[in-house]
Amino acid sequence: MTLLVSDIGEKELVRYIIANSRDITPDDTAITNIDSGNLISTCDMLIQSRHFPASMPYFEMGFKSVTVNVSDLAAMGAKPLGFLLAIALPKDLELDNFKEIMEGVFKACDYYQIPLIGGDTNEASEIIITGTALGTCDRPLMKDTYSHGDLIALTGKIGLAALGFEIDGFDNIYVKKALKPEARINEGLILKDYASSATDITDGLASELYEIKKDGFGFMIHEELFDISDEYKQIADEHDLDYLDLILHVGEDFELLFTISKENFEKLPIDCMVIGEVTDSDVIELTLENGFVEKIKNKGYEHYVSE
Amino acid sequence: MTLLVSDIGEKELVRYIIANSRDITPDDTAITNIDSGNLISTCDMLIQSRHFPASMPYFEMGFKSVTVNVSDLAAMGAKPLGFLLAIALPKDLELDNFKEIMEGVFKACDYYQIPLIGGDTNEASEIIITGTALGTCDRPLMKDTYSHGDLIALTGKIGLAALGFEIDGFDNIYVKKALKPEARINEGLILKDYASSATDITDGLASELYEIKKDGFGFMIHEELFDISDEYKQIADEHDLDYLDLILHVGEDFELLFTISKENFEKLPIDCMVIGEVTDSDVIELTLENGFVEKIKNKGYEHYVSE
Repeated sequence: MTLLVSDIGEKELVRYIIANSRDITPDDTAITNIDSGNLISTCDMLIQSRHFPASMPYFEMGFKSVTVNVSDLAAMGAKPLGFLLAIALPKDLELDNFKEIMEGVFKACDYYQIPLIGGDTNEASEIIITGTALGTCDRPLMKDTYSHGDLIALTGKIGLAALGFEIDGFDNIYVKKALKPEARINEGLILKDYASSATDITDGLASELYEIKKDGFGFMIHEELFDISDEYKQIADEHDLDYLDLILHVGEDFELLFTISKENFEKLPIDCMVIGEVTDSDVIELTLENGFVEKIKNKGYEHYVSE
Repeated sequence: MTLLVSDIGEKELVRYIIANSRDITPDDTAITNIDSGNLISTCDMLIQSRHFPASMPYFEMGFKSVTVNVSDLAAMGAKPLGFLLAIALPKDLELDNFKEIMEGVFKACDYYQIPLIGGDTNEASEIIITGTALGTCDRPLMKDTYSHGDLIALTGKIGLAALGFEIDGFDNIYVKKALKPEARINEGLILKDYASSATDITDGLASELYEIKKDGFGFMIHEELFDISDEYKQIADEHDLDYLDLILHVGEDFELLFTISKENFEKLPIDCMVIGEVTDSDVIELTLENGFVEKIKNKGYEHYVSE
């Protein structure tokens, strides 16, 4: 039988590449030593049919293509240095729509203070945008450098975008968060001096927790700490969605997941949300509001489009 | 009437982006000042149906995705620092073919001594590869910093790949050059200390000459200096192709086009091919073997696939 790439899945392809390359850091970004410190670099390819909901305006497509890359810089505590944009467009795309995409890119570059320094244009059957974000960092914040007893925290609420992808209308915080997420670049720059590790949540909290787990360490997450509103639960319920599933197994909020010692958390100058702690249990668990404890499944977010 | 992106063409899209961005250097790559010198960065997106001939083996696709990016570093005289690979694959691609692509990438990274440091994987309807090459350079070699009287030269013969795209078989230098071009990274590192300007030829010699032309300067190119073999002319003739058209208006050889003062050319420690000189005529001309002089048309290479 001939194996296809779909038989092994994207994560296995990445593992193959990492296993065969001696120079890849398996973290949010690449880290390259340069005389003046560390060059941080990362690239993400967004494909219209997979990454942009049908309702997403062109401006937001451009903005998001910067956000997804800057979010990886944020997860390292890196200072933005430059952004490269490779964009492919269908022949029959209206010129005004191209300009709206670019407006989104320009606006995002201004917002994150990352200059657009170069790129490439191309033709394809759908919109494809590969962004490359470059940054610098004296001491990059790795994703698995936590210790037993560290708190597990988030830079903000998660699950909002996940709900937003499922409901209609524009005039609510959920859809706004789904269509125009923002990278936590300033938070990353502060966390660099306080946190013990960090990563950005793209494929969902559960998936990231499994991604950062190392032998001999476990995580206990507490449902009550998520600060889930009654409105959130109600909307999820109305749409036949499991609210905990949205919070744990979808992503796209672009919040940072980080660990921090209790002492440093006291001193942290930004508001963050503690959701649990690093344990020695070697498992990833959730304490439900009713007091029961269950294992969190390693179920990742395969974007919002069903295959 | 609604304008489409195809109505204005790729070059106009690039002009729009450059005109609306204050941070883009209109040269082969971006140049970012860092404490220890200049960070050179460039990205190129390759799309299977546009950039890879149907006969191109998977290994060569991977190799070429590195070459096109490293060639831009070469044109700046930059030293390779790192390569990022964003790759999208069709679901039904055989796993072995994915591995062949990656073998090509690994081999090219070894060949150019540019470590593969990161990337992204994705799914798309065809193979799409965006490479980002990073490098460093103390004094980047710009594309239009030539003077009157400078010689115009190439790092090697051009037009070979152009012929290779049109003919069958693998066992000839033309098809080899078309399917596995090599970037002139070492030549770029040497030229940095001798040349007055440089760029890599991707869209054809004519197109690049117009790209680097500045007001008050012209170029005189001499057909006899191209060293065109009788075999080359004969094969072109057999395929109803104009050999000068192949040499002037197609690209993909990945040779460097550079200018150099006569004094420095004497000292240049590598073999290169002088093809003309910088004039004050303000036009781009060709002296034919028969002594006639004609203007070179600004006709670019729109890849090898007809639109």
